[in-house]
Amino acid sequence: MTRFRLTVEFDGRPFMGWQRQAHGPSVQQVIEEAVQRVTGEAATVYAAGRTDAGVHATGMAAHVEIGKPITPFRLMEAINGLARPHPVAILACETVPDDWHARFSCIGRRYIYRIAERRAPLTLDLGKAWRLRPPLDAEAMHAAAQHLVGRHDFTTFRSTHCQSASPVKTLDRLDVRRVAGGIEVEAAARSFLHHQVRSMVGCLALVGQGKWSPDDMAAALAAADRSRLGLNAPPDGLYFVEALYPA
Amino acid sequence: MTRFRLTVEFDGRPFMGWQRQAHGPSVQQVIEEAVQRVTGEAATVYAAGRTDAGVHATGMAAHVEIGKPITPFRLMEAINGLARPHPVAILACETVPDDWHARFSCIGRRYIYRIAERRAPLTLDLGKAWRLRPPLDAEAMHAAAQHLVGRHDFTTFRSTHCQSASPVKTLDRLDVRRVAGGIEVEAAARSFLHHQVRSMVGCLALVGQGKWSPDDMAAALAAADRSRLGLNAPPDGLYFVEALYPA
Repeated sequence: MTRFRLTVEFDGRPFMGWQRQAHGPSVQQVIEEAVQRVTGEAATVYAAGRTDAGVHATGMAAHVEIGKPITPFRLMEAINGLARPHPVAILACETVPDDWHARFSCIGRRYIYRIAERRAPLTLDLGKAWRLRPPLDAEAMHAAAQHLVGRHDFTTFRSTHCQSASPVKTLDRLDVRRVAGGIEVEAAARSFLHHQVRSMVGCLALVGQGKWSPDDMAAALAAADRSRLGLNAPPDGLYFVEALYPA
Repeated sequence: MTRFRLTVEFDGRPFMGWQRQAHGPSVQQVIEEAVQRVTGEAATVYAAGRTDAGVHATGMAAHVEIGKPITPFRLMEAINGLARPHPVAILACETVPDDWHARFSCIGRRYIYRIAERRAPLTLDLGKAWRLRPPLDAEAMHAAAQHLVGRHDFTTFRSTHCQSASPVKTLDRLDVRRVAGGIEVEAAARSFLHHQVRSMVGCLALVGQGKWSPDDMAAALAAADRSRLGLNAPPDGLYFVEALYPA
């Protein structure tokens, strides 16, 4: 068996999320079915993160084991051909050691959340960003975000469906910056709780709108109480952009 | 009657183009029907450019005349509410003099054409860019583009369906530049022939791929012969971004 690392891009809109679901299409299913058609073998594809319905990826890391001899390039091209018309593409493919695991070897995950700051409904970016009316105070949002950086109990920012053993996580970076047309939030950590990025961004939006102060963010974190969550941001603006592994 | 100038953004994928068509949906129809529902009046909406099927806009200029008293802000909000779920949005609205005409007063039009330079199929940018395999020589493309700038007979780069009285146009600017993920071509002129930008970009792609030299571009232009067109680029990557008017 040869283990292949895949770098996956997808538009999350038509999917129930990364993970296979009985009740709808998933990115995992699209790739697994393509691999099975290439190799004739049943295959399981593992990913660094199990994104929710509607969440996108520009650089999801995944791996799959295959018995049939095939080069990484041929495997990538074959999956890309067979995945059509689903909006899933393999951007890179390489062989990795048998103990390399997309999820368990991963030492860092990075997300971008895109906010479109405008009154008008989205057209070209529909489903690709969260629209919020101007004005948003990006500086206050960034100040509030800094209260969340570090090792904390993130219960307030954790879905009630989260299966993580502990609500304590270390958030390495939460940057808020102005970009053309709006605001971009970048979040980096070894790992995240379920809905953590969307929950943090939802509360940052309240800060941007002046409904919360940066101190309210600190208080919501300290409460470690899901009922103190201000707002959960929609999946539309969320992108899994990078997974990091030991060199 | 009050005349309103509209700045329109749209995702061109579901439309037959800007102009009303008997055989399918158009951007013009979406806006006219919204205006009619707001005012109870039949309305005709005129635009600076009649984009083809699948071509997008981030800043199309248009105008409409309305008898019912309404503020520009209320008109914009009402159209944006009624245009849903079509991917058409009014970004700005203002009153203009009765002799201001989106098409006939326009003294400059600007387009952007987006090329994604990659092997993998597009996912998030599907229908929003033209995918070309790397490597592309952006410097050669820019050099070739400069042969087209100026006043020329653009017959080679003109659709056989073009209704313009003359094939002679003055191209003010045709810039090719590297951007994240690919190449962007910016074209500016007082006006363009039907398919002119797509035809120029199609031939620039041949230059980028090394199939044409910059001199081949000059020769194709000089031939003034549609059969010398190398390639017509697909509508996917084309965006109408700006219309200019006298101050």
